[in-house]
Amino acid sequence: MEWSMMAMGQFYLFSLVLGTLGSLCVLFTVYWVQHWRGGFGWDGTNLMFNWHPVLMVTGMVVLYGAASLVYRLPQSWVGPKLPWKLLHAVLHLVAFILAVLGLVAVFNFHYHNRISNLYSLHSWLGITAVALFACQWLLGFTIFLLPWASLSLRSLLKPIHVFSGAIILSLSMASVLSGINEKLFFSLKNATAPYSSLPPEACFANITGMLVVAFVGIVLYILLVSSWKRPEPGVLTDRQLRFQLGPGSRPYPVAYMPVASGPSQ
Amino acid sequence: MEWSMMAMGQFYLFSLVLGTLGSLCVLFTVYWVQHWRGGFGWDGTNLMFNWHPVLMVTGMVVLYGAASLVYRLPQSWVGPKLPWKLLHAVLHLVAFILAVLGLVAVFNFHYHNRISNLYSLHSWLGITAVALFACQWLLGFTIFLLPWASLSLRSLLKPIHVFSGAIILSLSMASVLSGINEKLFFSLKNATAPYSSLPPEACFANITGMLVVAFVGIVLYILLVSSWKRPEPGVLTDRQLRFQLGPGSRPYPVAYMPVASGPSQ
Repeated sequence: MEWSMMAMGQFYLFSLVLGTLGSLCVLFTVYWVQHWRGGFGWDGTNLMFNWHPVLMVTGMVVLYGAASLVYRLPQSWVGPKLPWKLLHAVLHLVAFILAVLGLVAVFNFHYHNRISNLYSLHSWLGITAVALFACQWLLGFTIFLLPWASLSLRSLLKPIHVFSGAIILSLSMASVLSGINEKLFFSLKNATAPYSSLPPEACFANITGMLVVAFVGIVLYILLVSSWKRPEPGVLTDRQLRFQLGPGSRPYPVAYMPVASGPSQ
Repeated sequence: MEWSMMAMGQFYLFSLVLGTLGSLCVLFTVYWVQHWRGGFGWDGTNLMFNWHPVLMVTGMVVLYGAASLVYRLPQSWVGPKLPWKLLHAVLHLVAFILAVLGLVAVFNFHYHNRISNLYSLHSWLGITAVALFACQWLLGFTIFLLPWASLSLRSLLKPIHVFSGAIILSLSMASVLSGINEKLFFSLKNATAPYSSLPPEACFANITGMLVVAFVGIVLYILLVSSWKRPEPGVLTDRQLRFQLGPGSRPYPVAYMPVASGPSQ
């Protein structure tokens, strides 16, 4: 009982840190391009390119990360699973749409400025991440949301779905980081304040990159290691039972089975 | 019985793919700097820098990845654990030494050419990965190899140790990828064959980066998702019992307890 209260408190502490870090990732990226790179536009110029980092950090990292953790919310542990599945799918769909808009921004900028597409390693990583994300979403929709797949097929594919999601997030992180690095080498070329003299913009954008690393690290920790997992159907751990019986919770009929709820793995 | 044979076959198939990919990562990096960047030296010039990508890919990615998977070898599932722990620690120590030599190569190159240290996001990621690796190794040594820590402390910290190891590998991957990307922008500047025209060197180095992604993806899959895990003391799954009784294996006294050995997570 004592332990479950601690775990719950820990969960909300992690959520607070995660929400703060995610917001900072987006705000820092916006501030970077607004303050140092001239702000936003949708006109094929540099101002259009500026949407690219903002949409990618927001879609492929922050919203993607948040959407991945839907089933770690204690509220999702009891009651029917379908609404949480829909939330998981819809949030990821919004993240995907932001990523596609981010691609449109950079391709359109390249088109107007006669720059080749998809030549850098950064672009190869990014396009691979978005393509894998599309496959992952479609497979997830087909297997876990449509009603045809058997329970055994679902439980066979679930760990692979979770792992693929984590790998795509790592790849997005690598892509975002190589993109920030590349953009700073492109932009900070003048002799008075080159990237190598670490001017304020460089320091700020580097910190933005490190915030992305911290955010992704915490998402992956909650996703892969923490014991805040929705129990399998018909199985409730002590902790989840405690939550179900907590103040304000709506009781839901489910068999109770004492299950060890120490650190998983 | 049938399933366990399949799982074992699958494990060796994965090992084969992993060994091939790891070798290709190292060979491609060596070929890149040998064929297009003038080869190796230890003289403060570009030839000294060239050791940096080779030592980092070899140490922080390939050897690190291989060392992480020591306990996934079926041979390590039975018998005393200490020799495997020593192998795990020693391989990681060699990986760490290669990484330190990789840092010496780039710092020395910077020193001789009056280039600032640690200004790019790539360098911040890389130095963070190496520093976290040092902490991880020392903590692992103190907790898991020295005899003082209790079994309960060890089993509490084990999932965190595995997760930290995976995060450091992801960070190394991001660092290597941003480094290859950065190096290609530095080197392929001449108007006849810029990076954006995707000359053979660019294509080859980009492919090297994608090989690193594939290698890290498979290491993380085996580490985090696969069921090829050393069982906890006193617990043998059907599969491990089968292995123990397999031809050529040395029997080792351990209690047998039937445990579900489907996909973990």
